[in-house]
Amino acid sequence: MIEPLTCGVPHVPNHVELAHGGGGRKMRHLLESVILPAFDNRLTEAKHDSVVLPIGNERIAYTTDGYVISPMFFPGGDIGKLAIFGTVNDLAAAGAIPKWLSVSFILEEGLPLSELERVVRSMKDAACVARVDIVTGDTKVVDRGKGDGLYVTTSGLGMVPAGVDVRPARVRAGDAVLVTGDIGRHGVAVLSVRKGLAFESPVESDCAPLADMVQALVGGGIDVHCARDATRGGLAAVLLEIASTARVEITVEEDAIPVDPSVAAACELLGLDVLHVANEGRMAVFVSESDASTALDILRGLAVSRNAALIGRVAPDGRAGAVSLRTRFGPERAIDLPAGEPLPRIC
Amino acid sequence: MIEPLTCGVPHVPNHVELAHGGGGRKMRHLLESVILPAFDNRLTEAKHDSVVLPIGNERIAYTTDGYVISPMFFPGGDIGKLAIFGTVNDLAAAGAIPKWLSVSFILEEGLPLSELERVVRSMKDAACVARVDIVTGDTKVVDRGKGDGLYVTTSGLGMVPAGVDVRPARVRAGDAVLVTGDIGRHGVAVLSVRKGLAFESPVESDCAPLADMVQALVGGGIDVHCARDATRGGLAAVLLEIASTARVEITVEEDAIPVDPSVAAACELLGLDVLHVANEGRMAVFVSESDASTALDILRGLAVSRNAALIGRVAPDGRAGAVSLRTRFGPERAIDLPAGEPLPRIC
Repeated sequence: MIEPLTCGVPHVPNHVELAHGGGGRKMRHLLESVILPAFDNRLTEAKHDSVVLPIGNERIAYTTDGYVISPMFFPGGDIGKLAIFGTVNDLAAAGAIPKWLSVSFILEEGLPLSELERVVRSMKDAACVARVDIVTGDTKVVDRGKGDGLYVTTSGLGMVPAGVDVRPARVRAGDAVLVTGDIGRHGVAVLSVRKGLAFESPVESDCAPLADMVQALVGGGIDVHCARDATRGGLAAVLLEIASTARVEITVEEDAIPVDPSVAAACELLGLDVLHVANEGRMAVFVSESDASTALDILRGLAVSRNAALIGRVAPDGRAGAVSLRTRFGPERAIDLPAGEPLPRIC
Repeated sequence: MIEPLTCGVPHVPNHVELAHGGGGRKMRHLLESVILPAFDNRLTEAKHDSVVLPIGNERIAYTTDGYVISPMFFPGGDIGKLAIFGTVNDLAAAGAIPKWLSVSFILEEGLPLSELERVVRSMKDAACVARVDIVTGDTKVVDRGKGDGLYVTTSGLGMVPAGVDVRPARVRAGDAVLVTGDIGRHGVAVLSVRKGLAFESPVESDCAPLADMVQALVGGGIDVHCARDATRGGLAAVLLEIASTARVEITVEEDAIPVDPSVAAACELLGLDVLHVANEGRMAVFVSESDASTALDILRGLAVSRNAALIGRVAPDGRAGAVSLRTRFGPERAIDLPAGEPLPRIC
């Protein structure tokens, strides 16, 4: 049988592939074709990392993420720290002050208890730093060969302050696009361990909690339209998702995007486009043009975002869902999601 | 080197064992020695399936559970249905009305998409039956051989009605102990598939949502002191946990505990004590003696709990943490948690 030619549409396989977890087009397709239709609900339409729920007179942000990163320990962090800060950052991306987390472990038979203890201690320290309480949890054990040491799923709750409304649909033509620091550190740190690479100056993951940073913007009078941590799929995936949800075109200047020289060198060596490399402590932030320089000053005043930069604009008359990159030499190029899976198990 | 003799204290291994997930003494020891100390927080002291959080003027129950059941599909249910109803029931055990759920998948490379679709559809149907909305989620993919088809972790939020206070510490001497139906169905249904057993009348899992049942008691004017779904470790584990947290002794009559003849026969064949076999649609409920008969009438009026029974009392001067079983012939015997793991991957 000859398979029909497809053009632009990712091939729909009959089995789950690693690419379905990579933050690219295949993952989006799996979500849109299999998972989201079954969970049809008005609350998920916002397509944000957290949903905002009305409870009494309060608004509560609620989110969940599973963590399956391999290896469990990497320069600058581990799966436990990632599982706390990752969920804290998804709450922060809704403008919320993170408060309570749940932790659910899936342990593989044979995992050294010393490794579990190390991960648990790391989670406790991270929760302390992010000022969240772990209030409920669960532990399951699966047979040897049916896991990979440990997986952990966290969920989180945070309070959205009155007047704060941070979500992709609020992005408007003319908005300034900021990134809160140099990109690509997390992905490069993890890949360097996996591939056994040693760099002259070792790259550490940027894994960090970002809620205080978002609240500093809010407290400084900035109307944050949208904020999103640039994890799986990197800055490119985040900009594409926001452009698609807000139905705008985003234009960014390649030269304006901060990249550490050691990260740039590693990406060249590994054959990666840094725009698609995962971060765990960087956000894309959208504010109106008039707020841009104040926002940048606030961000640069904080250690976690001292390398923040203005990297682009929301085009006034763009193609909905498009992201274009302006390079120093040569024409603009469109950024697209990779179809496949350059970086499996990165978070 | 000669290992020191231990007596009563489970051997502490250096690696995670299947028994650490079984709901028995080893699991309790892992939680108390490794996991809970690191998450030291006053809110987890209640040792209940859900924590109750004050949000504005409301009280919100919050819980999480991972589901790793093998096989994924079994008579009367599947991992998806279990993941919805299990979390709904943990909220119900705090007297809450379940409202919002999160769903986080860990998919194994190679999982047939048809199986994922079947699970997702089942979750949607279960959410519809339990009247909860799935409002946020995540999907990760792990390499072939690093999972077991799919794992799913749900968390949930529910509203605790004013005046309702359902938790182990409220159990008092003299309380009546009810069970909301015949026990052992879920464990027997799963094991019959695993072991390829065919019974004359096939046993189906009792997997069902129990929040309406608890609210029927509340609405009927019953002050429910404690309610707990008897999942991993069965009715025995639940009674032992409650006896320990409330510092009371619980006495139950073996003859009063409803067990379907086909379940009893299967337990005999499999060499299992039905008290330790998992349920997914049965609760132990504690009410004051004066409320017992009204509570029983209300429960028996609902399809899900039509076989509810009064099975025992909280002893007036008992040993804290003890559960005793009175048999028709012979003396009382103490019920203990199994040290090992009779039923791995049961939920």
